[in-house]
Amino acid sequence: MRATVMYGAGDVRVENVPDATVSEPTDAVVRVTRACICGSDLWPYKTMEHTEGGRAMGHEAIGVVDAVGADVGTLKVGDLVVMPFAFSDGTCEFCHEGLQTSCSHGGFFGTAEVPGAQAEAVRVPQADGTLFVLPVSEDDALMPSLVTLSDVMGTGHHAAVAAKVGPGKTVAVVGDGAVGLCAVIAAKRLGAEQIIILGRHPDRIALAREFGATQVVRERGDEAVERVRELTEGYGVHSVLECVGLEQSELTAIEIARPGGAVGRVGVPQDETMPASQPAFYNNISVSGGPAPVRAYIEELLPDILEGRIEPGRVFDRVLGLDEVSDGYRAMNDREAIKVMVSP
Amino acid sequence: MRATVMYGAGDVRVENVPDATVSEPTDAVVRVTRACICGSDLWPYKTMEHTEGGRAMGHEAIGVVDAVGADVGTLKVGDLVVMPFAFSDGTCEFCHEGLQTSCSHGGFFGTAEVPGAQAEAVRVPQADGTLFVLPVSEDDALMPSLVTLSDVMGTGHHAAVAAKVGPGKTVAVVGDGAVGLCAVIAAKRLGAEQIIILGRHPDRIALAREFGATQVVRERGDEAVERVRELTEGYGVHSVLECVGLEQSELTAIEIARPGGAVGRVGVPQDETMPASQPAFYNNISVSGGPAPVRAYIEELLPDILEGRIEPGRVFDRVLGLDEVSDGYRAMNDREAIKVMVSP
Repeated sequence: MRATVMYGAGDVRVENVPDATVSEPTDAVVRVTRACICGSDLWPYKTMEHTEGGRAMGHEAIGVVDAVGADVGTLKVGDLVVMPFAFSDGTCEFCHEGLQTSCSHGGFFGTAEVPGAQAEAVRVPQADGTLFVLPVSEDDALMPSLVTLSDVMGTGHHAAVAAKVGPGKTVAVVGDGAVGLCAVIAAKRLGAEQIIILGRHPDRIALAREFGATQVVRERGDEAVERVRELTEGYGVHSVLECVGLEQSELTAIEIARPGGAVGRVGVPQDETMPASQPAFYNNISVSGGPAPVRAYIEELLPDILEGRIEPGRVFDRVLGLDEVSDGYRAMNDREAIKVMVSP
Repeated sequence: MRATVMYGAGDVRVENVPDATVSEPTDAVVRVTRACICGSDLWPYKTMEHTEGGRAMGHEAIGVVDAVGADVGTLKVGDLVVMPFAFSDGTCEFCHEGLQTSCSHGGFFGTAEVPGAQAEAVRVPQADGTLFVLPVSEDDALMPSLVTLSDVMGTGHHAAVAAKVGPGKTVAVVGDGAVGLCAVIAAKRLGAEQIIILGRHPDRIALAREFGATQVVRERGDEAVERVRELTEGYGVHSVLECVGLEQSELTAIEIARPGGAVGRVGVPQDETMPASQPAFYNNISVSGGPAPVRAYIEELLPDILEGRIEPGRVFDRVLGLDEVSDGYRAMNDREAIKVMVSP
């Protein structure tokens, strides 16, 4: 089968690889109908050292179940499923708590053991716990929005949950990438009264406004902090959704939170320490978040997609075939595209 | 009047200073009947550079209202009151949210403008919002426990609230100082099932056990992390109460939290950055806390003290007169005393 392999920074190839097969009785094989390139795929695209073996990429997908192992009980061949970016057994203590990203038997796609989903097919471990059967057909017009349940929409929602967004709250979203845009959707959906987006790309900002952002702060650093305070009677916001993961963005996130406020982090942190420990402390700001347990959120978010109340699929501004995936990485890295959908 | 002034590291003197007086119409003057030396007073005791003017120390007290300003409405001369370590107006948005330490018109004792309470009397700004009238007489036997409502008991409780302690939870308390010991009381009071204290002073550990600690970890660093994991089926604890504020203790706190767990910080952080940003992120650990809004907690904690269900006053193992306060600093700094009460 054809699959995407990254060999080093800037070096993404689509190659013939061995077919995905059931290797554990709890596995399913899914024929991929939609996959995506993720903002987090751009970190290795910028920095990965060359390796001989390469890394099979992709962790967001919708597809059709093609085969199931002997112990798979809830899925059958032909089911259309969404695949969260982490696999999870659905039965351990952490899964029961809704933290599937810490599942005792879980893990992530795009590793040597579990290849990625930017491919014709993908092996899904712990299939019963991982996959969610969709009540639509594989060519449904909602496919772009549905595939965001794999990652970006669930991740934006996680930022909002971690940042304690609720009715009447003031919110700031740091970052205008696809996750930041989904975070705007999530904040509005949870009842935020004011949603300030920090970003400076005109196309993304325009979409953020359509998703519910009430104000835009194009400044960075101290100027951004000052501007957010001006927009919030000098207080800062109740909830900050940090969707970048750089030291500067984390610093800004803490500085724009009002005393007693909350920062929800979903941008993968690129540094070992967190800045502004003392301001966070003196202002009683909570910092939480992490890899989103998107599996836990599908049931809550799906009806809003099916009934058209949210349209996270609008973050996709380019659709490519699998053989063009390398160009998709380039376009996202060059900020030509917000997010790329792949149709194998 | 007599008052405690710190002139530099190790240099604490009791001196004659101008009497505390009502200078704003919202002030009260309180004749101090009990004050304390706080663990946080030891930071300047170790490191403060010499200053000519000195710093008037003390932020924990019980006393009798001696005079009130024209705008004070809820207090009268003769009331016995507890004084939280921060003053607050009781009417601003943050006070209404129960975050009196961020009061719009609030501040802290022991500054040039608002001298401290290790003194015969203290000026209390925003008296209506700050002071809490106690329903006992000034020589009540519960005085040691009642004065902990000024700071340490409320601070331990804040750590437990920030760390989301609740029935059935597993808890670790990092630090066996007076705040750590009160944090044990708070964790038990909120229903924790397992309370592990990390500390190594035999007298403090013994008291922690009496307060409800179920296990003791004397190790530090990686060994402490390993030991806590052994005691929690390999998972770590739901709630970590960080009562120290050093880089090493914060690192340990994050490393012993189970995925999805919470760290509640009340140890004043001594570093600008927080360690272990990535482990905190990958495990979805929340980090919150800060200066405790002890004023918000008095109503909840007071009945448990009055009815003998908790005895935080047992953290005091030395009582000194005001003129001996310098020896109290020395004893606490040398770990001869857990916490010193001052009876002016």
